[in-house]
Amino acid sequence: MLPAHAPEFFTTLRTLLGPERCITDQGLLLPWECDGLSHLRQLPIAVLLPETRAEVVEIVRLAAEHGIPLTARGAGTCLSGGATAAQGGALIAFTRMKRILEIDPVNRTARVEPGLVNVRLSEALKPLGLAYMPDPSSQTASTLGGNVAENSGGPHCIKHGNTTMSVLALEVVLADGSVIELGHARGRTEGPDLRGLFVGSEGTLGIVTSITFRLERIPPAELTLLASFADMRSACNGVSSVIAHGILPSAFEAIDDRTIAALEHAGKKSGYPSNAAAVLLLEFDGAAESVRAEADAATALLRAAGALRIEEAEDAAQRARLWKGRKGAYGAMGRLAPDLYVMDTVVPRSRLPEVLPAIGRICDELGLPLANVFHAGEGNLHPNISFDGRNPDQVRRVLEAGRRIVEVCLKAGGALSGEHGIGTEKREFMPLAFGPETIELLHGLKAVFDPGRLLNPDKVLPEPVTCGEMRPAVLRGRSA
Amino acid sequence: MLPAHAPEFFTTLRTLLGPERCITDQGLLLPWECDGLSHLRQLPIAVLLPETRAEVVEIVRLAAEHGIPLTARGAGTCLSGGATAAQGGALIAFTRMKRILEIDPVNRTARVEPGLVNVRLSEALKPLGLAYMPDPSSQTASTLGGNVAENSGGPHCIKHGNTTMSVLALEVVLADGSVIELGHARGRTEGPDLRGLFVGSEGTLGIVTSITFRLERIPPAELTLLASFADMRSACNGVSSVIAHGILPSAFEAIDDRTIAALEHAGKKSGYPSNAAAVLLLEFDGAAESVRAEADAATALLRAAGALRIEEAEDAAQRARLWKGRKGAYGAMGRLAPDLYVMDTVVPRSRLPEVLPAIGRICDELGLPLANVFHAGEGNLHPNISFDGRNPDQVRRVLEAGRRIVEVCLKAGGALSGEHGIGTEKREFMPLAFGPETIELLHGLKAVFDPGRLLNPDKVLPEPVTCGEMRPAVLRGRSA
Repeated sequence: MLPAHAPEFFTTLRTLLGPERCITDQGLLLPWECDGLSHLRQLPIAVLLPETRAEVVEIVRLAAEHGIPLTARGAGTCLSGGATAAQGGALIAFTRMKRILEIDPVNRTARVEPGLVNVRLSEALKPLGLAYMPDPSSQTASTLGGNVAENSGGPHCIKHGNTTMSVLALEVVLADGSVIELGHARGRTEGPDLRGLFVGSEGTLGIVTSITFRLERIPPAELTLLASFADMRSACNGVSSVIAHGILPSAFEAIDDRTIAALEHAGKKSGYPSNAAAVLLLEFDGAAESVRAEADAATALLRAAGALRIEEAEDAAQRARLWKGRKGAYGAMGRLAPDLYVMDTVVPRSRLPEVLPAIGRICDELGLPLANVFHAGEGNLHPNISFDGRNPDQVRRVLEAGRRIVEVCLKAGGALSGEHGIGTEKREFMPLAFGPETIELLHGLKAVFDPGRLLNPDKVLPEPVTCGEMRPAVLRGRSA
Repeated sequence: MLPAHAPEFFTTLRTLLGPERCITDQGLLLPWECDGLSHLRQLPIAVLLPETRAEVVEIVRLAAEHGIPLTARGAGTCLSGGATAAQGGALIAFTRMKRILEIDPVNRTARVEPGLVNVRLSEALKPLGLAYMPDPSSQTASTLGGNVAENSGGPHCIKHGNTTMSVLALEVVLADGSVIELGHARGRTEGPDLRGLFVGSEGTLGIVTSITFRLERIPPAELTLLASFADMRSACNGVSSVIAHGILPSAFEAIDDRTIAALEHAGKKSGYPSNAAAVLLLEFDGAAESVRAEADAATALLRAAGALRIEEAEDAAQRARLWKGRKGAYGAMGRLAPDLYVMDTVVPRSRLPEVLPAIGRICDELGLPLANVFHAGEGNLHPNISFDGRNPDQVRRVLEAGRRIVEVCLKAGGALSGEHGIGTEKREFMPLAFGPETIELLHGLKAVFDPGRLLNPDKVLPEPVTCGEMRPAVLRGRSA
């Protein structure tokens, strides 16, 4: 059955894509109702599955012609609602555009389609001794196109940078169906950095059809440390101390007592000491000698900060053992309740010792189970709240906790999001982090790229008060 | 004497700034007629020298009120005309806004005013064991505000990145006088990266009044290699070989035979072997052990590529000796003729062996003396042409050489500019590097930030054909 409005849109697309790549049946649409932010749902009017750039162009042109909102989606692992359909809109899912178009080992670049799953690129590069560095925890599921949309981070982004640091060039379909290249495959940009503007724009400025990434050599040596502490405050001081001494681990993660309890509850042997209330995971990469020297220096600093025990692993099997608790944490939390709200905020490292207890108090007051697994070295927090999305009271409390956690982090000099984007989740919080001038600028830029507001509308930017406020002219009359 | 038009603009500014900071006298304006691109001149109608952000806001507001174009200027070392006044416009020179506002050694950030000379920041950081990495060759003269405007590079940017990689946040006065903060002092950006868009926009989107930079620790060890070759082709092969083996020097410079001859001609003892027709300078930084290992590996690869001689220096005095020729090169070229055209283009590293002789042929055909000093590791060329700007025929030939060199580099898969910006110099070449859709997008973004086109107009973007083409609406009707 075709949706009642815009029948021409659907009949043309059915002919173009075939019925199995133009899903409009209510029953088949249900699995596409939300992304990883499961408490915000919106059934798409259709799911479109292009296989080529030409099909993407055709879809965008038809959507523009018929005024249909389009939301680009990779694997749907987004945690801020960015990959959930807009009201009355269709999803354009990149599941079938997942080819590796080129690997250039000499210039160390790779060009891929946006639907390629992150880890598949790493697998293809490994025999060449090359690596794609950004490694979101979702890397076995999330797509590189989604990673670009959210400017995803990951445990190893403290040293190697979020996704944007690895994006050289983007092929983008604009709102009118024209195709442009942003950035430069050789890594140079001239004038304003449109590539940089685009990465992290969550599908609101255009739709990416291919990405050229910068690659790195696989580091010759890696070494992992696991340090356990009797309390989180000591662990946080250890984090600050290591960074302040100019040591830059390639990963610097923290796990709190509530997560350790969740691991125990799930029957997963974390192998952490029974008196540990906080665990730090550090990894170093580079030349064997420098890795050794950095690990020794970090060990001394962590001991001085009060570490109970420090374990070290150099080979892959030992390293996997130390990472086991970190990697299993989300699975363990998933066992506590049907839904998990994975928050994402940032605070200055030096404020971690006060912000973490404040977040704990908020969840305790609201009677919500909290577990913190986070990128400690970057001050990038992930307060994780287990809940049951079918219980409206629980959902209300989760949302209240979310708002209060954001407020605490911003008050501590933090940022709204580290790596999961704004999406629908934090759209209403944007005025807490940005002044009206900046939000107006962002609306103005959005209008340049997407004057008809059809590309992932109702995401990222708070609703303008009137239509006129979206336009550049609103810049007049600002105050200093 | 006040300029005839907009007398109110000048009387108000005279009162605000005092006569010595509001220069309008023709004779006093002459030294401000151009920046480092000396063959393109435009006398400003005034030079304004603010000392505070409030004064900048007032200047921008008054300029908006009276329709006076404003060009922000640091030290005027820009090599693409970006810091030369627009027609009928005033210069707002940041010579007096050069304070270091804050150095935060724990979070490793520094906040400075835009008029601070690059090297002054490094000097202030040194006693703290910290460093600001981007080091344009102009660093003893150029300002950090100018470096942000041009997204400047430098010998050590191959490893540490151009200026944008070190910019965390910018305080910006917009075209209407309002003040906003772009980016985040803790290094996180949410949504589209306005900070990234702004860096490299050459004063066309707003005027920066303070900059927060990311700092690094001074590397524990540094080591310099100088390798001389009998011909440039072998040297270029050495460059490709080192990079292809995953070795990333912190600097990787090349000097050609014409530059060596200029050094000899200037009586500067370069110390290069008499049979050297090309010299590579490599620097390594990091832990002592990794620096040693990288230098050894690079030495073997450079020998295999045919190096005649390789010298090594670990202490500061020895390193300065190896850098002497590189540092003295521009001074030596300056002796060859009254003017020097320092070009800036980029080609893929692998194309250097064919592009360099092609550039040589262009200059030979036009009878122009050429010398190449360049960031070889990045494929970032600087063909330097000595000429006499008072000779119209020489100027004509220099401009023709410039166009033909740009064409050769773009044809080889290169980019228009590596680190000197577009300015007025390469404005007309923009359509060679970018499609009309991208140029229209850039015009659209410019209109969002500066609807009145008063901020460094007539720079970077080629003139739109009609006024309407500057507006977002032009996005309609594009072709795929």
